[in-house]
Amino acid sequence: MTEISGPRTLEATRFEAFSDGVLAIAITLLILEIKAPEAESGQLWHELGRLWPSYAAYGVSFLTIGVMWVNHHNFSARLTAIDHGVVYLNLLLLGSISFLPFPTALLSEYLRTGGSNERAAAGIYALTMVAISVAFTLMWSYIARHHQLVKRDRIGDLRRQATSAGLAALVYVGTFAISFVSAIAALAIFAIIAIGFAFNKLT
Amino acid sequence: MTEISGPRTLEATRFEAFSDGVLAIAITLLILEIKAPEAESGQLWHELGRLWPSYAAYGVSFLTIGVMWVNHHNFSARLTAIDHGVVYLNLLLLGSISFLPFPTALLSEYLRTGGSNERAAAGIYALTMVAISVAFTLMWSYIARHHQLVKRDRIGDLRRQATSAGLAALVYVGTFAISFVSAIAALAIFAIIAIGFAFNKLT
Amino acid sequence: MTEISGPRTLEATRFEAFSDGVLAIAITLLILEIKAPEAESGQLWHELGRLWPSYAAYGVSFLTIGVMWVNHHNFSARLTAIDHGVVYLNLLLLGSISFLPFPTALLSEYLRTGGSNERAAAGIYALTMVAISVAFTLMWSYIARHHQLVKRDRIGDLRRQATSAGLAALVYVGTFAISFVSAIAALAIFAIIAIGFAFNKLT
Amino acid sequence: MTEISGPRTLEATRFEAFSDGVLAIAITLLILEIKAPEAESGQLWHELGRLWPSYAAYGVSFLTIGVMWVNHHNFSARLTAIDHGVVYLNLLLLGSISFLPFPTALLSEYLRTGGSNERAAAGIYALTMVAISVAFTLMWSYIARHHQLVKRDRIGDLRRQATSAGLAALVYVGTFAISFVSAIAALAIFAIIAIGFAFNKLT
Repeated sequence: MTEISGPRTLEATRFEAFSDGVLAIAITLLILEIKAPEAESGQLWHELGRLWPSYAAYGVSFLTIGVMWVNHHNFSARLTAIDHGVVYLNLLLLGSISFLPFPTALLSEYLRTGGSNERAAAGIYALTMVAISVAFTLMWSYIARHHQLVKRDRIGDLRRQATSAGLAALVYVGTFAISFVSAIAALAIFAIIAIGFAFNKLT
Repeated sequence: MTEISGPRTLEATRFEAFSDGVLAIAITLLILEIKAPEAESGQLWHELGRLWPSYAAYGVSFLTIGVMWVNHHNFSARLTAIDHGVVYLNLLLLGSISFLPFPTALLSEYLRTGGSNERAAAGIYALTMVAISVAFTLMWSYIARHHQLVKRDRIGDLRRQATSAGLAALVYVGTFAISFVSAIAALAIFAIIAIGFAFNKLT
Repeated sequence: MTEISGPRTLEATRFEAFSDGVLAIAITLLILEIKAPEAESGQLWHELGRLWPSYAAYGVSFLTIGVMWVNHHNFSARLTAIDHGVVYLNLLLLGSISFLPFPTALLSEYLRTGGSNERAAAGIYALTMVAISVAFTLMWSYIARHHQLVKRDRIGDLRRQATSAGLAALVYVGTFAISFVSAIAALAIFAIIAIGFAFNKLT
Repeated sequence: MTEISGPRTLEATRFEAFSDGVLAIAITLLILEIKAPEAESGQLWHELGRLWPSYAAYGVSFLTIGVMWVNHHNFSARLTAIDHGVVYLNLLLLGSISFLPFPTALLSEYLRTGGSNERAAAGIYALTMVAISVAFTLMWSYIARHHQLVKRDRIGDLRRQATSAGLAALVYVGTFAISFVSAIAALAIFAIIAIGFAFNKLT
């Protein structure tokens, strides 16, 4: 309790407010990637049905960013101070999460086309998820090595979190390989990983 | 008072900040669905008049999300702690509210075309409202069954709120049926329900 | 100090957070209305110069929403409690401010075309400003009549604020009339009023 | 400590919440400027590769706005009160930062075209950075001259910050000149300056 000193409150407030803002905007912008389809008279239900890749991509990306937000909360809840390294690693993280609407739009556009294009879209998505996981790994490792930023009794826990984020990065590298075989399989794995993270303990 | 312990404050702050962010963005993005119309020389007033379905859809969706925000406030004001279930049910809720700009765009695009397309647009809107109401029902039921998250004397009140949200879901199912007959009638019902909710007591 | 009771703090926090969110998003979305122009080889500077109506509309709307934010702050700084009426009048206000990117896009699109279209664009802008001013007038009048929401010694001040907002509404009605003569003159008046409000005392 | 009086807390909260909101939105909107490319069958990886100017512009602008956010934090952390001048200089600053997605879109669109158009895009970007730096210079100078807004022992530090922001403005004027020779060189300088600022001390 004494470790959460006055100055921390102010800095942490803005650190979290800015991060919450970016995550809330990234998650809400996803819907802009689903465009109202052109439909001839009497064809709108049919056209809306053909948009299922958009809904699937929306659902997976929404859940993924939602889980990121929970993970980010778990991260910042452990901090008792914020330094230069945390701020810039956090920018790296936010920059890669903010990028996600782009591969989401690609999946939404190309998942119905089949062929190698839909696999390329899934591949870009997987690479973005690798970048996000690497950023999380760097953040957890960083505060595990900078004891003054966290409560002393949590160091072991921080290393476990870093390892867990690093394993996620490896799984996403594997999903990148799978994306060359099947875009749908890759999308299913993104969904399964997000659901798996959703069963994680809340701190 | 003692139930609102230290940790709650921090978590609740981010829970509400993230939810407020998503709701504020969803409500403000609605205007992006009204595109500046192409108008030949001297025809802009006329073209702006033809956009009335866009203004109607904007007004109804703005009021609807505004009412959701008040409901969300009423929900979170009763919480003394936030757990895993609340966080993920809340994501389900935010995901369905964030989806609303899409059916709003569909109504805005197809309400002037008549025919079955405008009824399909109203139908998708109704289904989205069903999803939102179900998410609210699940949230209220969840905290009614998890007493440790709320003040003890409010359990009966929580059950009433869950019932009320469940009834709203049923009414929206009925509106989905009506949307197959008349898109305008469905839109009017969306407006009336939102206005009705606006007369609810603020907690 | 005693008037600012515990519950107020929480409610006011979310009331302001949601309002700040909506205003921040509306002001930042304005830039999306300036589209990167198509330019043939060597013509980009020329094309960028032709976009001056977009820059003018951006500048005026940015200043206008900025001034609204200051006014909103002045309003909520006087509240000691928030009730049903304040919440829904505030939604009316936010709904009309959030609408502003649309007439901004119209001005940006039609100001360079001349003719009656550019005057129609300025007219819609003026009507939106009338709606915003009316919403502000209603809000100030409402809390002037509901003494329990404010500190007692400020009633006279609230009536002055309501009158001032009402006068602004009248000036915007006048500007609507002027928009039928000259769009540029109307835009200049919008800018002058916003600058005038910017000289108002901060409370 | 006594200088941070009650009223400051409230005002500062909204001042920072609004600024954080605008900066978070501006940084997250950047991704909307990268459009999903049209690709013939089997050409998506190739088309995504051709988008490298978009990724470069996204990366530089994301880092730049991120650094601005840190600078803004450093600025507001020194304030013990907020007055009229701070509010409106801050609006000038936010207005110029919010403008950045537009030159980012120009760079993203024209950097692959070569010729004078890509140099014009870099030139507009440089002018926007000049405007941002001038706004920062004005803000630091303003509070250096208004002692009542800051802690007394920091005046010398404020003057150093104003000088540093002024020097950045001069460097951006120089980059504007360079943009007439090479757009890539200008973009590299924007990146280098942002990285340089990232090594600044966090306060």
